Amino acid sequence: MRNFNEFTITDAVIERVQQAENPRIREISEAVVRHLHALVREVRPTQEEWKFAIDFLTRTGQLCDDKRQEFILLSDTLGISMLVDAINHAGGEGVTETTVLGPFYVESPPERALGEDISGGMEGAPLYVSGSVSAADGTPLAGAAVDVWHSDEEGYYDVQQLDAIGGLVMRARFRTDEAGRFHFWTIKPAAYPIPHDGPVGDMLAVQGRHPWRPAHVHFMIAAPGHERLVTHIFVAGDPYLDSDAVFGVKDSLIREFVEYQPGRAPDGRQTDRPYFHLHYDFQLRREPARRA
Amino acid sequence: MRNFNEFTITDAVIERVQQAENPRIREISEAVVRHLHALVREVRPTQEEWKFAIDFLTRTGQLCDDKRQEFILLSDTLGISMLVDAINHAGGEGVTETTVLGPFYVESPPERALGEDISGGMEGAPLYVSGSVSAADGTPLAGAAVDVWHSDEEGYYDVQQLDAIGGLVMRARFRTDEAGRFHFWTIKPAAYPIPHDGPVGDMLAVQGRHPWRPAHVHFMIAAPGHERLVTHIFVAGDPYLDSDAVFGVKDSLIREFVEYQPGRAPDGRQTDRPYFHLHYDFQLRREPARRA
Repeated sequence: MRNFNEFTITDAVIERVQQAENPRIREISEAVVRHLHALVREVRPTQEEWKFAIDFLTRTGQLCDDKRQEFILLSDTLGISMLVDAINHAGGEGVTETTVLGPFYVESPPERALGEDISGGMEGAPLYVSGSVSAADGTPLAGAAVDVWHSDEEGYYDVQQLDAIGGLVMRARFRTDEAGRFHFWTIKPAAYPIPHDGPVGDMLAVQGRHPWRPAHVHFMIAAPGHERLVTHIFVAGDPYLDSDAVFGVKDSLIREFVEYQPGRAPDGRQTDRPYFHLHYDFQLRREPARRA
Repeated sequence: MRNFNEFTITDAVIERVQQAENPRIREISEAVVRHLHALVREVRPTQEEWKFAIDFLTRTGQLCDDKRQEFILLSDTLGISMLVDAINHAGGEGVTETTVLGPFYVESPPERALGEDISGGMEGAPLYVSGSVSAADGTPLAGAAVDVWHSDEEGYYDVQQLDAIGGLVMRARFRTDEAGRFHFWTIKPAAYPIPHDGPVGDMLAVQGRHPWRPAHVHFMIAAPGHERLVTHIFVAGDPYLDSDAVFGVKDSLIREFVEYQPGRAPDGRQTDRPYFHLHYDFQLRREPARRA
């Protein structure tokens, strides 16, 4: 195999990757080559442009560490994360819709008891969150793991300011009670720009795009025999609901964060400040047959 | 813009990137989104597979430093570097063919005088290299910058073993004489596997591919008013000429490295060991009109 031109090179590479033993790797490798070559033949990059692309991808990888995942941001802002999400979650009657995981999830968050305040003393308007987890047919799911995480009132997550605050806050894992319910206290999150001081921020800038996401609380909910649910609940009225930088908003995931005057909250707690209340009832899909 | 499914998300992202002011950025962004989304829709990755892809790209970037460029290796092994090369160098009568730059070029290599030995004392069979640089019409190009670099007899470049050898060897910049000629001494390079202890090596392994490149000497030649030529000259008879891991071989770039018994070499040097001789006459394309 020698002397390739801009058309024969594609078949040559595909012939090579077809030596893969694993049929799924063969299928993915062939498709990657075919689509990337088609992209290059359409765009016809100069050598300088291709060098820039290599450098862009290199810098994107180099910016990643245990607190920053620039490649997830790239996937999110190109709409690929939501596309992968759509492919894997076709939706359906009585099942909560999904959205992107985002780059700020932390594995095995701190376990907290129902009713606890997870704000860790961060400044912000008190937020009371209540809800339930059930199967699509309405059966309550007791003992489901409810992971939550969200930003502070300035739009920053704990992991973006760990040195200043010293630990994980505004994130926790709860277990639903025997009726599938959960509730906790925290502070109201704010809209925020995704981290945009790196290659992805540069990309958004030259594409004429803003980096903002509407305010939301993340949820990841797991219960035996059901598909893990990854989603957010968005704050109704947020100005960025129609221009989310990562294309993650769905109408069914928007809720009023209702403001209440000081007094007795639904869990009996007495508050001396106004507070907000978010309620959401989540419904999980039964686990499908696995790909062989 | 909300509530996207696997088909509407693509138009939504394209609409967003069309806000780019620069028409070339608009064109590239739109094509990247369209082709990557088509790839994802065809392959239908699971969330786990997409997570693996993100991790693969992250590790590829993180492995890059001033001595290793894993994203160039990825581009090379997917045939994309040769595709970009083919798009930018259509070939033509009387012009030397091009091939990949590869990851081992060093900007501004040490300037050496014609006739010098650039092996830096590395072990290996002596190699005498001679050649010329001319325009496509045969006019000699005096003062052309001839950058050369190649591996040692075990297939390693200087930059892969800098700590052990202490400096740049088997690489240099020469200037052609008034007749457009150059000559120098070095050692004969060997076939070698591209660095395959990283993500790209893992990819080749699961694709059932070997990482070897046939033995070659790299050339980058620049002369005013002409396109910079990036190419290699391959050693005739190498067992990997038909299965180069980066698809870089062209018949016109293969030359006999002729073995001679000890005696007087073409430049008058007396040798007491057998040596090889490579001769190649390079022809450069006149600079085309630039993209506006």
